Amino acid sequence: MSKEITSRQEDYSQWYNDLVIKGSLADYSAVRGCMVIKPYGFTLWEKMRDQLDKMFKDTGHVNAYFPLFIPKSFLSREAAHVEGFAKECAVVTHYRLKKDPDGEGLIVDPEAKLEEELIVRPTSETIIWSTYKTWIQSYRDLPLLVNQWANVVRWEMRTRLFLRTSEFLWQEGHTAHANAEEAIAETIQMLNIYAEFAENYMAMPVIKGVKTASERFAGAIDTYCIEALMQDGKALQAGTSHFLGQNFAKAFDVKFSDKDNKLDYVWATSWGVSTRLVGALVMAHSDDDGLILPPRIAPIQVVIVPIYKGDEKKDLLDAKGKELTTQLKNAGVTVKFDNNDNTRPGWKFAEYEMKGVPIRIALGLRDLENNTVEVARRDTKEKKNMSMDGLSTAIVKLLDEIHEQMYNKALAYREQHITKTDNWDDFVKLLDEKGGFISAHWDGTAETEDAIKEKTKATIRCIPLDNPKETGKCILTGKPSIQRVLFARAY
Amino acid sequence: MSKEITSRQEDYSQWYNDLVIKGSLADYSAVRGCMVIKPYGFTLWEKMRDQLDKMFKDTGHVNAYFPLFIPKSFLSREAAHVEGFAKECAVVTHYRLKKDPDGEGLIVDPEAKLEEELIVRPTSETIIWSTYKTWIQSYRDLPLLVNQWANVVRWEMRTRLFLRTSEFLWQEGHTAHANAEEAIAETIQMLNIYAEFAENYMAMPVIKGVKTASERFAGAIDTYCIEALMQDGKALQAGTSHFLGQNFAKAFDVKFSDKDNKLDYVWATSWGVSTRLVGALVMAHSDDDGLILPPRIAPIQVVIVPIYKGDEKKDLLDAKGKELTTQLKNAGVTVKFDNNDNTRPGWKFAEYEMKGVPIRIALGLRDLENNTVEVARRDTKEKKNMSMDGLSTAIVKLLDEIHEQMYNKALAYREQHITKTDNWDDFVKLLDEKGGFISAHWDGTAETEDAIKEKTKATIRCIPLDNPKETGKCILTGKPSIQRVLFARAY
Repeated sequence: MSKEITSRQEDYSQWYNDLVIKGSLADYSAVRGCMVIKPYGFTLWEKMRDQLDKMFKDTGHVNAYFPLFIPKSFLSREAAHVEGFAKECAVVTHYRLKKDPDGEGLIVDPEAKLEEELIVRPTSETIIWSTYKTWIQSYRDLPLLVNQWANVVRWEMRTRLFLRTSEFLWQEGHTAHANAEEAIAETIQMLNIYAEFAENYMAMPVIKGVKTASERFAGAIDTYCIEALMQDGKALQAGTSHFLGQNFAKAFDVKFSDKDNKLDYVWATSWGVSTRLVGALVMAHSDDDGLILPPRIAPIQVVIVPIYKGDEKKDLLDAKGKELTTQLKNAGVTVKFDNNDNTRPGWKFAEYEMKGVPIRIALGLRDLENNTVEVARRDTKEKKNMSMDGLSTAIVKLLDEIHEQMYNKALAYREQHITKTDNWDDFVKLLDEKGGFISAHWDGTAETEDAIKEKTKATIRCIPLDNPKETGKCILTGKPSIQRVLFARAY
Repeated sequence: MSKEITSRQEDYSQWYNDLVIKGSLADYSAVRGCMVIKPYGFTLWEKMRDQLDKMFKDTGHVNAYFPLFIPKSFLSREAAHVEGFAKECAVVTHYRLKKDPDGEGLIVDPEAKLEEELIVRPTSETIIWSTYKTWIQSYRDLPLLVNQWANVVRWEMRTRLFLRTSEFLWQEGHTAHANAEEAIAETIQMLNIYAEFAENYMAMPVIKGVKTASERFAGAIDTYCIEALMQDGKALQAGTSHFLGQNFAKAFDVKFSDKDNKLDYVWATSWGVSTRLVGALVMAHSDDDGLILPPRIAPIQVVIVPIYKGDEKKDLLDAKGKELTTQLKNAGVTVKFDNNDNTRPGWKFAEYEMKGVPIRIALGLRDLENNTVEVARRDTKEKKNMSMDGLSTAIVKLLDEIHEQMYNKALAYREQHITKTDNWDDFVKLLDEKGGFISAHWDGTAETEDAIKEKTKATIRCIPLDNPKETGKCILTGKPSIQRVLFARAY
């Protein structure tokens, strides 16, 4: 195959880029920091989106759509929020172009300057809470459970396809509640949905936890997160769910009257996952031969490749291939029958291996005689002959097995890469040599967190939700600590 | 009911705004010209989007995603294209805000000026064809059948909710072909899909036609359209499909080698419909009491309202209501059981009437005894008692009947409002007094078209595809004409 992939060993970062581009997920674009999501990559995102959307709707959420633009003054309303986003904003200043009077091209028309600049949304809390002010008057209007699927822009200096792009696609839930308890319960519910999605659909184990103050979302009281581990030992934040308290309600003066006609500010949450998940998926499972996609969200779950010997019984092979395709479709499997005779089977095998299709079925002349097919798994590369009788049932079962095995493999790797230590030198050495999460004591101060980051590039990924309380001494300062936290270098 | 609606007679334009806002479809936003699509309105758009998406996929198209931003220089590559869009562009000039050194707020950081300004996409031909250059080398890469669901921005000076907003949601198909015939066939295929969707799902009859040169998409060789008629006699362009020839391939140097290894420029189409369709839907069917939504895309197809008499048999009413809800759901009907006891039945009736829910089922104590329910149609306001036995089958049938009747009603109105005339004074009078489409002869020149627009505000909506050839004299100039065309005032 001509599309060579750099091995993980040789250059992990290049391996990732090769997979994204040669696996037909995305391309660089002519616009700095923005990517083109190719049809195969977009179909993967659609499958993820549709499943998440179903989970949101099953828990009572509805979709809506808010403006792309945010008036500059809105951003400033919540002090921490603006601090977090002002430095990476795409700013619209004009609304018209005109012919360059001194040349051939176009220039921005200086007479079409906006009175107030507009920010391309980096996130929508401000525009949404300015709207909620008109939607919420009474406790009867609560809870308000709204989600939005949208594009957002954060002007990133260093970009990576899917992992960090100036424009990305995401969903952002924005809910409003009558009290703190309900809002916190919603925050946790959505965190659990993200974890369930990551594990049951992406086959990617995650650790649920809460962020330290310095890693919190700008404007949140608490940020909960799911953290995944990539094959190079670096962590990746795969989703966040924020308890916003009354911060945005106060910034936009959103009050409601309760059953006793008493006015109070509304309580808020927001939560989101993005196309970054596609990057996580690639890095969690794939190998040096290409993508390995988990069955439940793979754009193509099964590909059937007929092995022609010239024109001999070509019609029979095609007929049988189509028959199997129909059987599998009827069993709910997304299947492609690739009978294109411009390319040879070997080329096709390599192509679908690259694209991470979970199961490949090869169908040759001998198979017709034997009533069998050759079934190859992408994840383990195991091949076996299977009877055509009851094939669709067996394939459905196999897809589930592949999911389980992919999950278990990733989980085993993650479990092997959570290392406890109480010694600073070991801490540094573990980060450099083994990677993964380091479970260590921390004195609870932002100063120490910063110092550790400065010295090692590792950050506190989270304080796990099920963290046992355990007193000890801070890994860096030796000061008293009440619990271990998870450190890692991260994407 | 407190939510009064202005009547169509009194002020058609205000009636429309009342319906959109009080029917919970959309709100004005804090950003000039941008709207907030509320959950009910967004669910309507989702149903439209999902059906269209299915029709696109059934005809071999795949979705992808291209950047929101377009480098300024790209717009200039195709001369007609830039002419069409330069005057209404939102322009990003900077990528950072900073604290105002002289005050409290934020200012654009003058040091964060972009080298080349970015345009928020008004449409994506340029960014997509710059990408296709890397995707297309050989005839084997063709046809390329890609669609994108996205937000776009055209800086409109006069905006109307859904009909004309600075930001709107849409889909834009962009296909690439090896020859003109295939590209033209694609253009027509997509026009037919739009017409089928408008008629079979929106219950809105449309005329398929081709635009005159002056109404063409900027950069197209031919623009095909579907034109609908609103209840005030004004036309509305509901979708367009463009044959772009080799214009964009030439602008972005996209060539392919054919089977004989000969290089040629690629042939293109683009086609789109937008959230404007929601506005068309509102105006095509609704009445002075609120929205009337066509059953196949209504967010709620059936609402069941229990009529409680205090607590008497409340449990029985609830149990029966839930039973009917389940039955209808199992029959594929989107149904809401509104047993909220904070509001009275009368309030609920008015609310769902306003929201245009096609069928309302009332369930009272007498109904329990008689094994019946009261079924009310939103479109005709007819009520009848129906047996609970086989109710879901009857409701599914009724939903279809409502669709047919809504379509036929709109069609009858449209047919009554296509008027032939060969006399200029009648032409003007018809536009002023009767409205609708005027079928008249035109000499084929842009000058005459402009003069007619200047005098009457009417434009040529289209030359219908099935137009009979008929020689005559131009309605304005008396010069020879080869066919009638359809004039109308339009949204």
